[in-house]
Amino acid sequence: MKELQDKILRDGKTIGTEIVKVDMFLNHMLDIKLMDDMGEEIKRLFNEENPNKILTVEASGIPIAVSASRAFGYIPVVFAKKTKPSTMIDDAYTAEARSFTKGTTSVLRVAKDFLGEGDRILIIDDFLAAGQAGMALCDIVEQAGGKVVGFCAAIEKKHQGGADLLRSRGIPVKNLAIIDHIEDGRIIFED
Amino acid sequence: MKELQDKILRDGKTIGTEIVKVDMFLNHMLDIKLMDDMGEEIKRLFNEENPNKILTVEASGIPIAVSASRAFGYIPVVFAKKTKPSTMIDDAYTAEARSFTKGTTSVLRVAKDFLGEGDRILIIDDFLAAGQAGMALCDIVEQAGGKVVGFCAAIEKKHQGGADLLRSRGIPVKNLAIIDHIEDGRIIFED
Repeated sequence: MKELQDKILRDGKTIGTEIVKVDMFLNHMLDIKLMDDMGEEIKRLFNEENPNKILTVEASGIPIAVSASRAFGYIPVVFAKKTKPSTMIDDAYTAEARSFTKGTTSVLRVAKDFLGEGDRILIIDDFLAAGQAGMALCDIVEQAGGKVVGFCAAIEKKHQGGADLLRSRGIPVKNLAIIDHIEDGRIIFED
Repeated sequence: MKELQDKILRDGKTIGTEIVKVDMFLNHMLDIKLMDDMGEEIKRLFNEENPNKILTVEASGIPIAVSASRAFGYIPVVFAKKTKPSTMIDDAYTAEARSFTKGTTSVLRVAKDFLGEGDRILIIDDFLAAGQAGMALCDIVEQAGGKVVGFCAAIEKKHQGGADLLRSRGIPVKNLAIIDHIEDGRIIFED
């Protein structure tokens, strides 16, 4: 998606060869026009998979999922939680995910009320790196008896292998901007 | 806002006299059509305050802020973080907030790049209870030299006093659904 690539090149900052900081529009301050354009593109990419629900993970996946929901005619969004709120009933699907950026492991958690058999789930996230969060979200959908009909990240860091990992599980993966690698601080997109 | 009140009565669950669980549409699964209608109502309520930016806090404030941004013609959204990501530069405004629901204290954090002098900030959150998160967000805006031109929560729990606390600071507060109290498990809205 050219608009997103241009934005990454203009406002993103690289740290070493592994991290792209997009706090200016995707992770801390949010460009909502861009979110809506991304939502429309996600609808175009996954229309044939006919999802009935979107699953994402707090916090930066949420705005993209909101815009995609609207594009799909307001299908529900469920976001996995990383902490266990005191008002959440214990009855939840859980899976562990290691965060590449933070170097920590979180337990992702979705209340059983909100996923179930027959659900056709489109998973949306801000980044796809090693694929740990994506795999954990797939585990959660499978525990619920649902089907993952697609996975879409705004930004894939290809050399970290997450897309291959998800595809080896049979998941259709289509991401909006695919970074091949980072070289001397420059971001090189896949052709 | 009648649509939101009806939704709270239909799908919300009370726990004791203090907690309303709205996981079904606002805090865990999200009803995006409702978010957009709330966004339009927020625009109507705060149009004259002419905000140039929305400030909220992760995670449940984000979807409401996204919809409100669109209603205001795509003004930027900034969300305060509750944890310190390893890729965030240390240069941040911070303020402490106690969470009523979780019984914990978090440090809210906004990178200095995203707030500044001249900013006219509309603060949006899912709940207004004792007002601790709202006060912390106001502190952050003031540290940055900006002005809080309004505060809007989806749901105010009036008897917990947060709206009075914010108003005593001179902030215009207008919330979408105001719960007067909870009685025998029934939610009583303010007239």
